[in-house]
Amino acid sequence: MSTQAPHPTLLIPGPIEFDDAVLQSMGHYAESHVAPGFVKTFGETLTMVRKLFQSTNPAAQPLVISGSGTLGWDVVASNLVEKGENALVLHSGYFADSFATCLETYGANATQLKAPIGDRPSFEAIEQALKEKPYKVVTVTHVDTSTGVLSDIKKVTEIVRRVSPQTLVVVDGVCSVGCEEIAFDEWDLDAVLTASQKAIGCPPGLSILMLSGRAVETFKARKTPPSSYYSSLANWIPIMQNYENLKPSYFATPPTQLVHALHTTLSQITARPVSERFAAHRQASDRVKAAVADLGLQQLASKTENQAHAMTAIWLPEGLTPPDVLPGLLKRGVIFAGGLHKEVATKYIRFGHMGVSITDPARGDVEKAIAALKESLADAKKAKGL
Amino acid sequence: MSTQAPHPTLLIPGPIEFDDAVLQSMGHYAESHVAPGFVKTFGETLTMVRKLFQSTNPAAQPLVISGSGTLGWDVVASNLVEKGENALVLHSGYFADSFATCLETYGANATQLKAPIGDRPSFEAIEQALKEKPYKVVTVTHVDTSTGVLSDIKKVTEIVRRVSPQTLVVVDGVCSVGCEEIAFDEWDLDAVLTASQKAIGCPPGLSILMLSGRAVETFKARKTPPSSYYSSLANWIPIMQNYENLKPSYFATPPTQLVHALHTTLSQITARPVSERFAAHRQASDRVKAAVADLGLQQLASKTENQAHAMTAIWLPEGLTPPDVLPGLLKRGVIFAGGLHKEVATKYIRFGHMGVSITDPARGDVEKAIAALKESLADAKKAKGL
Repeated sequence: MSTQAPHPTLLIPGPIEFDDAVLQSMGHYAESHVAPGFVKTFGETLTMVRKLFQSTNPAAQPLVISGSGTLGWDVVASNLVEKGENALVLHSGYFADSFATCLETYGANATQLKAPIGDRPSFEAIEQALKEKPYKVVTVTHVDTSTGVLSDIKKVTEIVRRVSPQTLVVVDGVCSVGCEEIAFDEWDLDAVLTASQKAIGCPPGLSILMLSGRAVETFKARKTPPSSYYSSLANWIPIMQNYENLKPSYFATPPTQLVHALHTTLSQITARPVSERFAAHRQASDRVKAAVADLGLQQLASKTENQAHAMTAIWLPEGLTPPDVLPGLLKRGVIFAGGLHKEVATKYIRFGHMGVSITDPARGDVEKAIAALKESLADAKKAKGL
Repeated sequence: MSTQAPHPTLLIPGPIEFDDAVLQSMGHYAESHVAPGFVKTFGETLTMVRKLFQSTNPAAQPLVISGSGTLGWDVVASNLVEKGENALVLHSGYFADSFATCLETYGANATQLKAPIGDRPSFEAIEQALKEKPYKVVTVTHVDTSTGVLSDIKKVTEIVRRVSPQTLVVVDGVCSVGCEEIAFDEWDLDAVLTASQKAIGCPPGLSILMLSGRAVETFKARKTPPSSYYSSLANWIPIMQNYENLKPSYFATPPTQLVHALHTTLSQITARPVSERFAAHRQASDRVKAAVADLGLQQLASKTENQAHAMTAIWLPEGLTPPDVLPGLLKRGVIFAGGLHKEVATKYIRFGHMGVSITDPARGDVEKAIAALKESLADAKKAKGL
């Protein structure tokens, strides 16, 4: 029995449903952020971030900072790129546009390599772009929350290392970390940024990053100081290193309750091989995708290899918009999200299937959602005379 | 009876002890950040921020952003000042140094007007400095958490309006909002930035700001775009206005649980006249200061008019350092903080007396702390043969 108040099941691509123990950690009593108890909690949390990324290289640097996932873009843009340097932004949805704007805010020349809605840039196009000019960073959205398009970050990194080995590979993993496979060291990634409230299963309010030794060295070799203050790695890296070494340290007060919740969820996640967690998400995704096809619906992500495993963006039947369908889902105790990609926002809905909704099959969340979707669509079509 | 697990009483200058209802709000079940229920909670929270600041001018703009209090400096430095403009930083402790660094990061020319440790710049010195060159902003730390020095922001603003009327008055209210009187409209302030975890009584993780109509217009009249992305008012103001008008809106996922906790504590605070809250903090402060004097100890803040009402920074007797005294306090169930001002950090301790520890006198926190301080000092002196 859950200790949570009765509520509709939240199946949007984040925030997601919480495990009871994670939510209970949010109510931790007041602690000093520099006292031994909290320092240990924060230090262990950072060490578990390494495990989440399957990273054992001590040169890699995890960071957990008070802020939304969006803040991770600022950390990248104001520390890993200098004014006038080039950034190649691989576009698979709404979030690449915003990341490009963030990069330009801090002085980068951002070039977007776009794909049609529901697709991602081809490997050939990426290779071609990399040969055209020197790029300081390539950014790739692992899963674009607006389209449900999955990028092949392992393959992209292989291309970068072959064609432009010094270019840093930056992954926006907001909707992928904790549900899609990421082998940080093995794949030779340089930066992955994410947020607490998606597949990691913690409430929102933490920006989480993992940096490679190469990324840290690139930062240290800057010719100019970092172009932000709150997001500056010069301010944060010593703090993270101190906490992980169980030494109190202060730059800004950490969100102690959220860090406890992150500690709880990462303890659960890393208690088992993460490969099992990724497999569970793939299997649930297969069930969802099959059900969507059975309903005669198409996904925005148009090819099997482009489809995320923890969310599905579903085109609505012609004549229906999200307000026709979402209330019927809510009536059946399920919350999906409307569209987010501004060009087509009124034409699709998004179903998030990650975290406890997947790892605790006894909840029956996915099956309940599939049944609710089927009934709500039928009702909506009937109401519209379709 | 508190519903919280037994724990030592946290009496540092933030984070502070929490009310049970506030902490329970942290365990709110998962919600969509754009669904009507949460939109209403967030909208009401912003309206209560206006009340907290005793502001009724609709041109004023409250903001609640995921991040530490430190983030408020970035919001000011990257939006209200442009590259090459002048900022006058009134120095009353450690935090002015950091604010100046933040302003310089975004291109301001920051001039610090310093006072000796335990004091604040004189009104004459402020007036003189304002006459020397045009300043875009003057920043003043209302209560410097490192020294416990209180600034007279009402008087400082009067001087600014008389001598340099277009200069924006920016108040770092991290350790003052919710405990020291602030009449935002009446005193004609332009920006107050604070954090959730001090006298507001919410867990850490929210940066809270209040901007005047003049500050918003100054931002809109910028010749260059904001120099940060995550902290950009261009990104946040429309979001805050939409939420307050009960319209869903998205720039970055808000920390839903923390917003619930803020809603709970602001509901409590604004249920009574805020003047009563300020008076309660002043009365408790008088008891603490009298007890400190009775123990033969001096404060860092050397004059009555310079002393904060929600914290006290206390010089230790010659020969004692914080590690000699803090464990004895902990043994008696009380946590104080060590020194923070780097020049003298080993010579003093800090006692935070704010929030529920003051507004719920039945807790007896202040009396317990005073007794524990007396005994711990006696033990420490004995152990050192003093």
